[in-house]
Amino acid sequence: MIFQRPLTSVVRSSAFASSSRVTLPALAFRRTLATVRDAPASSASTKAPTAVVMMNMGGPSTIPEVHDFLSRLFHDHDLIPLPFQSILAPVIAKRRTPQIEKQYTDIGGGSPILKWTRYQGKAMCEMLDELNPESAPHKPYVAFRYAKPLTEDCLEEMKKDGVKRAVAFSQYPQYSCSTTGSSLNELFRVARKDGYGAEGTVEWSVLDRWPVNQGLVEAFAQNIRTALQAYPEERRNDVVVLFSAHSLPLEIVNRGDPYTAEVAATVHAVMSQLGFTNPWRLTWQSQVGPRAWQGPQTASAIEGFSKIGKKDICLVPIAFTSDHIETLYELDIEVKEEAEKLGVHLTRAESLNDSPIFIRAIADLVSKHLKDYDAGRIGATGKQIQLRCPGCTNPKCGKTKEWLATGGKAVTV
Amino acid sequence: MIFQRPLTSVVRSSAFASSSRVTLPALAFRRTLATVRDAPASSASTKAPTAVVMMNMGGPSTIPEVHDFLSRLFHDHDLIPLPFQSILAPVIAKRRTPQIEKQYTDIGGGSPILKWTRYQGKAMCEMLDELNPESAPHKPYVAFRYAKPLTEDCLEEMKKDGVKRAVAFSQYPQYSCSTTGSSLNELFRVARKDGYGAEGTVEWSVLDRWPVNQGLVEAFAQNIRTALQAYPEERRNDVVVLFSAHSLPLEIVNRGDPYTAEVAATVHAVMSQLGFTNPWRLTWQSQVGPRAWQGPQTASAIEGFSKIGKKDICLVPIAFTSDHIETLYELDIEVKEEAEKLGVHLTRAESLNDSPIFIRAIADLVSKHLKDYDAGRIGATGKQIQLRCPGCTNPKCGKTKEWLATGGKAVTV
Repeated sequence: MIFQRPLTSVVRSSAFASSSRVTLPALAFRRTLATVRDAPASSASTKAPTAVVMMNMGGPSTIPEVHDFLSRLFHDHDLIPLPFQSILAPVIAKRRTPQIEKQYTDIGGGSPILKWTRYQGKAMCEMLDELNPESAPHKPYVAFRYAKPLTEDCLEEMKKDGVKRAVAFSQYPQYSCSTTGSSLNELFRVARKDGYGAEGTVEWSVLDRWPVNQGLVEAFAQNIRTALQAYPEERRNDVVVLFSAHSLPLEIVNRGDPYTAEVAATVHAVMSQLGFTNPWRLTWQSQVGPRAWQGPQTASAIEGFSKIGKKDICLVPIAFTSDHIETLYELDIEVKEEAEKLGVHLTRAESLNDSPIFIRAIADLVSKHLKDYDAGRIGATGKQIQLRCPGCTNPKCGKTKEWLATGGKAVTV
Repeated sequence: MIFQRPLTSVVRSSAFASSSRVTLPALAFRRTLATVRDAPASSASTKAPTAVVMMNMGGPSTIPEVHDFLSRLFHDHDLIPLPFQSILAPVIAKRRTPQIEKQYTDIGGGSPILKWTRYQGKAMCEMLDELNPESAPHKPYVAFRYAKPLTEDCLEEMKKDGVKRAVAFSQYPQYSCSTTGSSLNELFRVARKDGYGAEGTVEWSVLDRWPVNQGLVEAFAQNIRTALQAYPEERRNDVVVLFSAHSLPLEIVNRGDPYTAEVAATVHAVMSQLGFTNPWRLTWQSQVGPRAWQGPQTASAIEGFSKIGKKDICLVPIAFTSDHIETLYELDIEVKEEAEKLGVHLTRAESLNDSPIFIRAIADLVSKHLKDYDAGRIGATGKQIQLRCPGCTNPKCGKTKEWLATGGKAVTV
């Protein structure tokens, strides 16, 4: 069951009794939680907060931010190792800006990822105050890799709040060196440069992966069940559930990056949660450039299925939790247009966004992490993140991991 | 828990009370079960048995069988689609025979896969007679794809026994078109050619994949725990658990073959069962020929780990259940030799072979399958096997799947 720990009956009955989130008005949900936590929050308000740092790639919230977003992205050697990166990155970023600006315009003028992350973080921390009064108050911080608020903005806010204890919480459920790894490398770099956040000023612990977290899996399953309702009952169980995750260059896969295997684990857990009611496949999207990427590709798979007469397909973005350009533009506009030409009845499971099952899941995840850490059942990092890839070519990773393993205390790495 | 259904206290206390199979003499285990089932077995002995057909690739039991094994393998268009296959296959088989004969000589004169399959099948069916008296007696049959007993031998034996109900039980826990798919295509081909087994003479149902079966996962976990005992306690939890599965050409992965994702699901379930005590990676072995294969490669990963100072590595074959040439020769001789040169302390978790946890797992799996089928909760096949790969290039697969979906009744496909 996903609700493993007790919450007060008020919260449970109002926000979580229903298995379908569409019956729950988001506002009522927030108001109820606020009422519940009034007392502990005020009594704890003089303490510096326990920080929950939500790390993600981020996206430009407005069109004028697109260029800087792309520029940071192409400068990230952990993500895209280019030769002469400092010269090439600005050129590529500038050249791609108009096209990407148009894509963000088409989805409403910017990425909603900051809006959703703030929403999730606030609701999660309200629950945490109730679940973990011993570490309350909890405050969400956002550290995006390529858009504001950046890691430096996050650390500045934490410093102002006097934070001494923080959880680095990757918002990527599955770990890749090019996503979570890059965010953690950036945290180490900025903290060491600015002083605050490194050298023991903050006690860090890391939640680096949670691919089969029970609440995450149920939240995905619930959104798939809802999406499948769009098909007539007699065809519903034959709809292809097509999981789609951002692909990875094979060069990174072959180094031993754990991402593809962890995405596959999520997919199997979700299908298991659904009782294997439908056929499914895992495919990969967003390949760019001349390199070979992990396949099969999402768009080709849809074309292939249409050729063998499978025309009912429900897409499920499985490696991001919030909507962003890859769901709202690539899947909902580009892929959908192609599918319509092929006569495919394509739907998409909603991203987790404001799913109360998802928000309860991340609250439970962080709650357990804090309790396990405080009780000494876990250390600052897990065993898996300590293991560098067998083909690792990035010495930064090793240093970051050593630093994190000491809870951010190490000064010599 | 893995033991979901009750068995008599005699069996439970003697064979399964211990979590470690090394404490259980195999002979005592078999004798106990035989005693338990004497009564139901004799009363049911006039009925034709319910067949449990254990499908696998097989291996040559003796050196003189190597050539025919290779010849069948290179003739299998579902596994290796060669141009001019009927001309090329004999040439390649003949050329490779001496080298492969030497490998089988080095592991003791043949593959133990038939021995283990027979052992597992016998013990499984003895349990099934007790778990499912309504469908007793149960009899194990072996249908290997490239070695004796072949599908035709299996069907001939079934015919002689008057079998009318059979479970096609893939011994590959994870489904690939080139393994389980090839075996099922062969079943359809031979049954249709010989008459018996097709056109409703046998009522078939299919157990085509079971990658995260709880007993399977616990059996793997148990063998890993045992293997890790070889390391001193202070280093034990830092040993890299290196799962290794037979690789697949990327051409097949890119068609949408579900194998790699299902192997990853097994790996995650096993690590979860172990409580994520150790760092781990999933790598792929046995690549041959000029094509690109799914990586990273097992041998390269060991080399890479040794370079970054990770010298304690425990190999875990995760996509086969019994020992065969890929474990006994490739891992235990070839890979081990290379690892020793690198100063790596390499161990290997035992294959499941005679693991009583594993045998109880497959008995439970088939038991539930039979009960669910008889109660109408499942059909002849699951939803997933019905979905051909989006890039499928093998029309045989579609026909086989149509035939299996009718429980082997269809005559027009």
